[in-house]
Amino acid sequence: MTHDKQEKAGLPRGRFITLEGGEGVGKSTNVSFVVAELEARGIEVVQTREPGGTPRAEAIRELLLSAAEEPLDSDAELLLVFAARAQHLAQRIRPALARGAWVVCDRFTDATFAYQGGGRGLSFERIALLERLVQAELTPDLTLLLDMPLEVAEQRLAARLDRTKTSRDRFEQEQRDFFERVRLAYLARAEQDSWRVATIDADGSLDTVQRRIRLVLDERVQQWT
Amino acid sequence: MTHDKQEKAGLPRGRFITLEGGEGVGKSTNVSFVVAELEARGIEVVQTREPGGTPRAEAIRELLLSAAEEPLDSDAELLLVFAARAQHLAQRIRPALARGAWVVCDRFTDATFAYQGGGRGLSFERIALLERLVQAELTPDLTLLLDMPLEVAEQRLAARLDRTKTSRDRFEQEQRDFFERVRLAYLARAEQDSWRVATIDADGSLDTVQRRIRLVLDERVQQWT
Repeated sequence: MTHDKQEKAGLPRGRFITLEGGEGVGKSTNVSFVVAELEARGIEVVQTREPGGTPRAEAIRELLLSAAEEPLDSDAELLLVFAARAQHLAQRIRPALARGAWVVCDRFTDATFAYQGGGRGLSFERIALLERLVQAELTPDLTLLLDMPLEVAEQRLAARLDRTKTSRDRFEQEQRDFFERVRLAYLARAEQDSWRVATIDADGSLDTVQRRIRLVLDERVQQWT
Repeated sequence: MTHDKQEKAGLPRGRFITLEGGEGVGKSTNVSFVVAELEARGIEVVQTREPGGTPRAEAIRELLLSAAEEPLDSDAELLLVFAARAQHLAQRIRPALARGAWVVCDRFTDATFAYQGGGRGLSFERIALLERLVQAELTPDLTLLLDMPLEVAEQRLAARLDRTKTSRDRFEQEQRDFFERVRLAYLARAEQDSWRVATIDADGSLDTVQRRIRLVLDERVQQWT
């Protein structure tokens, strides 16, 4: 939908940008970079993340990430993800977009297709059904998919955990073939929706990667503002 | 489906009985009574409740019942209810039924139609969609709906809270018209599915009510065993 049509339809005026990618690709650093780039252009930005983004949604995040003795059923996991998303949309994302702020979110529904669909093998149809139920017409205006070979991402993740002395959460404990499936599912989403999803080669120096991100932002911001 | 057909189809051999009703109708007491009645007939019974029934599902229950500053979005509430249900089904209810045990559960999906549908005004179609997604073919074999006028239930609830010195949870804090809608939604479910749902007049002495419950159990148990 063009900006004009969107305004006529009474849809949100702000723009919704998501960052996606597996563990260790540098999402957190680059979320802050995207926020800074937009703010430098005078745009009001709300920075947030999924699962989470509000106190209640963060409490759901805790349930999702905590390693407990009882295995978490894959349907239960999927429903918790969308419960957190419904809360986040209602309390934070939709109100921000409605007042014209831009929202930059670390992970969103593409992550559900990648992790619960690709990784866990849940049917994409079930995920799409919940996506429609919870989001209705709302999808990101732009998704930056940070992509790099698995070996590089794994080395970075290991270095970060070592540096911050934290242990792996439920997802970080998964095996290599899980992350291979996550990566492939992400790349398939990008191929299916190549206008919305910009795949960024994240295997390079921070400077190089951020130059790539800036190029995409420049192009889109110019179009939208 | 008859018992024979059910066995041929490889479906659970155990029976799934749920107790339903608003606050203060005496569900807890009568859940224990139903369990005792079945055990007296030599049946292996698993007693459980919703939301909850497993450690992870009970953690989700906490999120649902806790009164926090941030309002809980009604879609998020609905998805949390079904997340807890998926976990409960996978970890407790289905395994019990599969080995031939009977499951007696304090509340199940009728409560979702009554509270989130009737009470909160969420569309019954959305609830039915999640019901199919999470439960597939599984529905209770028998539901005992404990029903009484709202004034009587409210007096009982107030007396219990006073006796146990506990404060009202997020649902117990709702207003009278909320509970009126809950009750009407329950009665509508019973009317639509009058074989599965036996409505028990719960406004009477414990003895009288339990005689009514025993009559229904006698009839069904004879049929099933």
